[in-house]
Amino acid sequence: MTAQTLKSDANALTEEVVASFANAENPRLREVLQSLVRHLHAFALDVNLSMSEWETAIGFLTQTGHMCDDKRQEFILLSDTLGFSMLVDAINHRSMEGTTETTVLGPFYVPPLKERPHGSDIAGASQGTPLHVSAQVLTPDGKPIADAWVDVWQSDDDGYYDVQKPGQEENLRARFRTDAEGRLSFWSIVPTFYPIPHDGPVGKMLEAVGRHPYRPAHIHFMIGKDGYDTLVTHLFIAGDDYLHSDAVFGVKEQLIVNLTDEEAGWNASGERIGAHKSLDHTFGLRPAAAAS
Amino acid sequence: MTAQTLKSDANALTEEVVASFANAENPRLREVLQSLVRHLHAFALDVNLSMSEWETAIGFLTQTGHMCDDKRQEFILLSDTLGFSMLVDAINHRSMEGTTETTVLGPFYVPPLKERPHGSDIAGASQGTPLHVSAQVLTPDGKPIADAWVDVWQSDDDGYYDVQKPGQEENLRARFRTDAEGRLSFWSIVPTFYPIPHDGPVGKMLEAVGRHPYRPAHIHFMIGKDGYDTLVTHLFIAGDDYLHSDAVFGVKEQLIVNLTDEEAGWNASGERIGAHKSLDHTFGLRPAAAAS
Repeated sequence: MTAQTLKSDANALTEEVVASFANAENPRLREVLQSLVRHLHAFALDVNLSMSEWETAIGFLTQTGHMCDDKRQEFILLSDTLGFSMLVDAINHRSMEGTTETTVLGPFYVPPLKERPHGSDIAGASQGTPLHVSAQVLTPDGKPIADAWVDVWQSDDDGYYDVQKPGQEENLRARFRTDAEGRLSFWSIVPTFYPIPHDGPVGKMLEAVGRHPYRPAHIHFMIGKDGYDTLVTHLFIAGDDYLHSDAVFGVKEQLIVNLTDEEAGWNASGERIGAHKSLDHTFGLRPAAAAS
Repeated sequence: MTAQTLKSDANALTEEVVASFANAENPRLREVLQSLVRHLHAFALDVNLSMSEWETAIGFLTQTGHMCDDKRQEFILLSDTLGFSMLVDAINHRSMEGTTETTVLGPFYVPPLKERPHGSDIAGASQGTPLHVSAQVLTPDGKPIADAWVDVWQSDDDGYYDVQKPGQEENLRARFRTDAEGRLSFWSIVPTFYPIPHDGPVGKMLEAVGRHPYRPAHIHFMIGKDGYDTLVTHLFIAGDDYLHSDAVFGVKEQLIVNLTDEEAGWNASGERIGAHKSLDHTFGLRPAAAAS
């Protein structure tokens, strides 16, 4: 069979498979699966996928499935490391003047979070460089959004989330609520870069292609308020070695922030505050009515 | 963000992900993964995949992985029902004048098979319409291939393989060896159509899109001989209701055979042979040197 004959036979097969979905009652399911078939078939033809490569792929998917349980989602890691999650994020959260860009949720969000008063220290037992965070949540035209919930979670100084360290639940994660000026503040520690879980099939894939598993240091924020799209994003710490090679492609320039060095001193209550870093950031929420 | 901006941002993301594989030491792995990323990203953009559809896909893949064990390979069923297995088969087994076309292996081949003498009845405890099969294995220019091994397996009159019925192992499956004229023969029963295992995620997918899970009646053959490509194929029984809607797209016109009605009579040894069906088929093997 010539390459031309293969292409013609393959096209006929692809069309036969596409046609098999023609009777799907749900037109959206039909559209998605027909498109998936066309793209998957085009991939196999483009690379002339061998039988043994197909077997390897079946084995990889099977191991990926077996790695998944209620604490580990290896298919999300696969989607993340192939840039697929960030693409779906881009498709569904188009940017708008005056609003904060979105990025991936990640696997370490564990709702519900306990609401804490402004100024709380969320570091708990975690040691590290103290960090004071203040933030304001605004509409696209700069008006404060009061009473928005603001969920915050981050890794510790070793690059681990509380859920990865048994007994440290609700460390470095909390919910705050904005005041009348749309503001909130809390104490934490400076997060550090960390590897995505890489002891499974996805980690093996990264190793096989010479990619590291690290994410640059960041703090997760999820911000919600009736009438606005819920914002899922991170703030990345400027200067991190992995800002330009995030294992999950989550970095956007707008989300990189500088920390300020603050000298030791006394606060309004006359308490001694040691030297620390500070971060002040403004978030913009997108009105729900402005759906694209 | 306009659709144009999304496309431009998405293309930049895709190229960033593709570039992340540039340092893979294995050039083939790099090629395959870079192509996969491009095609998967194009798919998500084409259909504007929503967050909830992405979540559904992650859940579907996870369930598919959890369905896999040493007796059940749900990812192969998924590949089969998306026509992906037949496409990979077409890519790797290009047809050639005088050779038999290939089709999928399927999940019910269980080597090694016990070698049986010509004329054996492989039906065992299975009831059904008696079928006499005779076959000859030839080179592309019609010369007999002696001493080839010929593995045969098929479903019973209810559409089940022996491995699906505990205690019936080595029923309706056997290995034969061709004689000096490239011939073999055996007794069996006429197979019937059957559903692929459809109590898992793939079965749910088929149901959701209005597809049935049936495969038309067929007998599996795998034929091997040093110096020739091992042939993996089926013979499909003409007249089956599902010939034109095989759940795994495995049917090729060349592989559809007619059964002949044979009246009762006496064989060469003077034994009474009841009315039965017969099938006589010629297989052509492809010399291994003729690799494409």
